[in-house]
Amino acid sequence: MPELRKDPITGRWVIIAENRAGRPDEFSASGEAAAGGSCPFCEGNEQQTPGEVFAWREPHSEPNGPGWRVRVVPNQFPALQPEGDAGRSSAGLYETMGGVGVHELVIESPHHLHSTTDLSVENVREVLDAYRLRLIALKRDPRLVYGMIFKNVGPAAGASLFHTHSQLIVTPVLPILVEEEMLGAARYHGEHGRCVYCAMIEEELAAKARMVHETATSVAFCPFAGRHPHETWILPNSHASHFEDITPDILADVAAALHDVLGQIERSLDRPAYNYIIHTAPFNAPPLGHYHWHIEIIPRRTRIAGFEWGTGFYINATPPEVAAAKMRE
Amino acid sequence: MPELRKDPITGRWVIIAENRAGRPDEFSASGEAAAGGSCPFCEGNEQQTPGEVFAWREPHSEPNGPGWRVRVVPNQFPALQPEGDAGRSSAGLYETMGGVGVHELVIESPHHLHSTTDLSVENVREVLDAYRLRLIALKRDPRLVYGMIFKNVGPAAGASLFHTHSQLIVTPVLPILVEEEMLGAARYHGEHGRCVYCAMIEEELAAKARMVHETATSVAFCPFAGRHPHETWILPNSHASHFEDITPDILADVAAALHDVLGQIERSLDRPAYNYIIHTAPFNAPPLGHYHWHIEIIPRRTRIAGFEWGTGFYINATPPEVAAAKMRE
Repeated sequence: MPELRKDPITGRWVIIAENRAGRPDEFSASGEAAAGGSCPFCEGNEQQTPGEVFAWREPHSEPNGPGWRVRVVPNQFPALQPEGDAGRSSAGLYETMGGVGVHELVIESPHHLHSTTDLSVENVREVLDAYRLRLIALKRDPRLVYGMIFKNVGPAAGASLFHTHSQLIVTPVLPILVEEEMLGAARYHGEHGRCVYCAMIEEELAAKARMVHETATSVAFCPFAGRHPHETWILPNSHASHFEDITPDILADVAAALHDVLGQIERSLDRPAYNYIIHTAPFNAPPLGHYHWHIEIIPRRTRIAGFEWGTGFYINATPPEVAAAKMRE
Repeated sequence: MPELRKDPITGRWVIIAENRAGRPDEFSASGEAAAGGSCPFCEGNEQQTPGEVFAWREPHSEPNGPGWRVRVVPNQFPALQPEGDAGRSSAGLYETMGGVGVHELVIESPHHLHSTTDLSVENVREVLDAYRLRLIALKRDPRLVYGMIFKNVGPAAGASLFHTHSQLIVTPVLPILVEEEMLGAARYHGEHGRCVYCAMIEEELAAKARMVHETATSVAFCPFAGRHPHETWILPNSHASHFEDITPDILADVAAALHDVLGQIERSLDRPAYNYIIHTAPFNAPPLGHYHWHIEIIPRRTRIAGFEWGTGFYINATPPEVAAAKMRE
């Protein structure tokens, strides 16, 4: 079973998961992806994955057989596992915790496609709706604290398989960067009496220079202090702290925004590797006035070096205004 | 001139440095390093770099000519620049600051070598002594707050040149990860009345399972909550907050430790890409009872993916005890 360990200086948790060493990596040797036929995520190969926990399927199709459009399965090499006890223990300086949690894969298409932009907007909408439904199902477990949804595309972004998929890791503690983001947002709310993300949306709509996408219910812009070239955030216009509370209309709108913005990035940067991450509030939090869920998209053109590791200080050689202008072209 | 921008949510600073886009990258296209002859860091090619600010040289050799053993030069594509004003300004939500600082390269050998382990221990000692002398010289500038020394080896660790070199970036604000580390150490000191790093050294010497190196004046171990496989920290046994206050004896001992521990890592992992980073106290701090300078070595075998970006939660598939046992073999 995986184990959580806490760094006694910073309070940062690390997952020690020996089972992860065995997972396949299509990209490791050659940097080339495997062909579609043998891919465990392709339609017809459903037996090569653990049994599905959710799917969008054609009427009368059978679970774990063909006929699906989006399929959610447990990760065969999970970072955290649902069985067991999340109890904490300590020995001397060091604190540990059982590696209880959930690690699922969202297989986004039955076809051997690579990026979110290879999918239809309707397909992307069903992917986001699968995220929503899984979060709602999993937050019922009182041992679980936070649901993190993310996607890695391309080996430089940490992907080990070519076939388009995203991941859901649910943790029994609040991750440190989420905690810091929420504390910062709460501090701003305490000082100014409003949500810092709502204030950013207002400021970006007025300034225009960093905007890349705008509809009646969502915006996307390159953030003023973006860490990475062409980093882009997508936010719903109306304040909401929990992604899983999204309405069907906004879900459809955000799906189109995600598809379009990733297309803008891929045209600007010649289809780079990328990550996207949904930042949302913890399971057990009530609706929060100070926190605003959003999606952060991080193209991975530059490598993270020692300076960034040591300082948390990022060097970005492309001003967000320049990136946004290129994306709008 | 580069600009510092502050993220209004987390308070994290980002350096926006357009000039960095022009820097050469030997590794970008092919992943292969350039040959030695044309390398700007090789002896005889001194005119291809900005003029040296420090060097260990043979008697009677001339600055910016051959005859050096270690050479420190300004980075031609600096993330921060010494001229100008570090004044802050703000517009609406956003705060900026002039990108004042220093970015120097420490060329560690006149020969076209790659890793610290390719150098003699005496050569490594002179490299560390150059770090020490540069920190002492630069901390006199009252605009400068923090001196970060780091090394990137191999493209996967963010290096853009093959020839063995390290870097010094001096910033006009305290980097966020340094601040968090120091706050965590101060919190422990407040609760327990002693340095958390001194406590870790004592615990690791007693437990033995994570130890990889031990002398009368320094230790190295794989930290209990290590983020990366084979992550290793080197610390002086005796408490000291500022690296630049190191004594000649401990400097020589730490140079040998760095050389030996990197050799253990390279034998265990088949010469991986790696970073090392010197964690030390800010320039203007007095000697601190709660902070203990140290070197963190991070082999870069695994790629950082969306989960780590989004959460600050690391997944490590090699328990530190397993890594340390392999390194001791």
